[in-house]
Amino acid sequence: MATTQQRIVSGMRPTGPLHLGHYFGVLENWIALQDEYECFFFVADWHALTSEYATPGRIKQFVPELVLDWVAAGLDPEKCTIFLQSQIKEHAELQLLFSMFTPLGWLERNPTYKEVKGELEGAKDLNTYGFLGYPVLMAADILIYRPHLVPVGQDQLPHLELTREIARRFNFLYTPLFPEPQAKLTEAQKLPGLDGRKMSKSYGNAIHLSETMEQVTPKIMGMLTDTNRMRKKDPGNPDQCNMYPYHVLMTDAETRKEITSGCTQAALGCVDCKKMLLKSLERFLGPIQERRAALEANPKRIWELLEAGNRRAHDVAVQTLTQTRERLNLEYGELSASGN
Amino acid sequence: MATTQQRIVSGMRPTGPLHLGHYFGVLENWIALQDEYECFFFVADWHALTSEYATPGRIKQFVPELVLDWVAAGLDPEKCTIFLQSQIKEHAELQLLFSMFTPLGWLERNPTYKEVKGELEGAKDLNTYGFLGYPVLMAADILIYRPHLVPVGQDQLPHLELTREIARRFNFLYTPLFPEPQAKLTEAQKLPGLDGRKMSKSYGNAIHLSETMEQVTPKIMGMLTDTNRMRKKDPGNPDQCNMYPYHVLMTDAETRKEITSGCTQAALGCVDCKKMLLKSLERFLGPIQERRAALEANPKRIWELLEAGNRRAHDVAVQTLTQTRERLNLEYGELSASGN
Repeated sequence: MATTQQRIVSGMRPTGPLHLGHYFGVLENWIALQDEYECFFFVADWHALTSEYATPGRIKQFVPELVLDWVAAGLDPEKCTIFLQSQIKEHAELQLLFSMFTPLGWLERNPTYKEVKGELEGAKDLNTYGFLGYPVLMAADILIYRPHLVPVGQDQLPHLELTREIARRFNFLYTPLFPEPQAKLTEAQKLPGLDGRKMSKSYGNAIHLSETMEQVTPKIMGMLTDTNRMRKKDPGNPDQCNMYPYHVLMTDAETRKEITSGCTQAALGCVDCKKMLLKSLERFLGPIQERRAALEANPKRIWELLEAGNRRAHDVAVQTLTQTRERLNLEYGELSASGN
Repeated sequence: MATTQQRIVSGMRPTGPLHLGHYFGVLENWIALQDEYECFFFVADWHALTSEYATPGRIKQFVPELVLDWVAAGLDPEKCTIFLQSQIKEHAELQLLFSMFTPLGWLERNPTYKEVKGELEGAKDLNTYGFLGYPVLMAADILIYRPHLVPVGQDQLPHLELTREIARRFNFLYTPLFPEPQAKLTEAQKLPGLDGRKMSKSYGNAIHLSETMEQVTPKIMGMLTDTNRMRKKDPGNPDQCNMYPYHVLMTDAETRKEITSGCTQAALGCVDCKKMLLKSLERFLGPIQERRAALEANPKRIWELLEAGNRRAHDVAVQTLTQTRERLNLEYGELSASGN
């Protein structure tokens, strides 16, 4: 992690095991970034509370599981800083300081706020102060590390814009401190669920990174393919097939060519095509499961790497907070720390 | 500070030097409480930011001045815990956790919110996320010490009720932890300013606790008395006199009897009455100024006593936060602290 590298910050909420959709949507990208950037990746357990406050029972279990998923998938704690949000209290302090000058209107107009609130209305009561303010917490999560870039999908641009507005407002009101992080736009690799809908644990149509081939095989064998192709002797169309995107992401180009011609010429049946996908999945999941097994053999390892990451994150966060407090006239050099 | 004592928490914003109105409205009461209760009194520097965020330049200067005013007035750091809010980061963390389940409606309906916002509208832009949420921060400030009582005036009851509602909601959603602190109602000793309006630094009609008799004398000699009494030979009425409340608070009963009869019988003129008040003020301010001088001779003392108070407050706050996080499934025993 040379300091000449540009810095990147991103986080994920610990709300359950990761599936292929998470891998190709976010994680694959993170894994590529760790080689080129100084990366801070955090488990956003405080953010999980914004929607799960009424039933927080599983957050704690999901935290080490998420880190296990990350490292098994290929995040390397030697290359990037993996840490736990709630252990860096400075995020909460910076959130509080940012809240003082963040106009309510910015939060009320936040399109994601309206959208998510609309989606979950009825299921969860999100008319809370914390839910309205989660972009302020997010701005603190990001800006505390003063990154150059934030990897986001197109749909998250409004959030990043709010973070940039908060940085601008701070820099306008006080001596400038925060960079306005740029979006590192990532092409969302969309992978449908087994049934053609969005892949989601709650739809039961997902393949998790932790699954064994024994668990995966029946799922793949039963998955939806090209619904217009009723029999093997009908020619199929990979572009209409729910399964073909899996091949695009996990099967080598040569085999894919074979599949396309076999399918469109009615030479390759869906069952055989599924067996080919299982081979690809085995190749894909193999190294992930090896790393997982190694980590699970030493359960302390997850906590140790989190501790190391927390220390690194804390060192940076403390520096930013000191400089923030100086600008707000809340830094008391006369006082030694009171255990904080 | 025996642990069998009931616990009390209260705070004050560091926004300038204290005057007699503060003394008789709040401080006199605090000084009495410290002998009977385990008291936590804090300098609310984060709260000062809610309204002063655009010009925080003087907060830092006001902090030690406020502590100096407190101790000079008679708060005894051996009897009570005097500390600085922003040094106890756990307040920010608890505020964040409380925000997750605090309904927006509770804050929007808060009568003080509407009132203060109306008063300051135009002068300051208080349409901020932090200003809307200051009762959540206040609830964290109080509940983190799990007190039995909170000293409040009649006008602050809605705030305390919000704190109690937040405690109730936490105890309802999770394993109960927080007591619902009771109001310790204090009779507000109202002292008008020199010109008859509310005593306020910004009206220039205040007598500050730090003033010398040289500074006080011309103010008293020029102050407004009974406006119906134009000449000494007219009989006056202490109940109509702006100055008489000062005698009520600072002059002994016998002398007051003398004043009442002299005034109503046109035997005592306002100038002489003012001279009598100056004697009372000298008696009142004398010990305050002695303690102030002793403290000012050793400027480190203020910071040292704050440090000691911060440590005591921190010890209690950490315990409450640990138990709070346990209830929210955010306490990770597997992790050692990362410097927090």
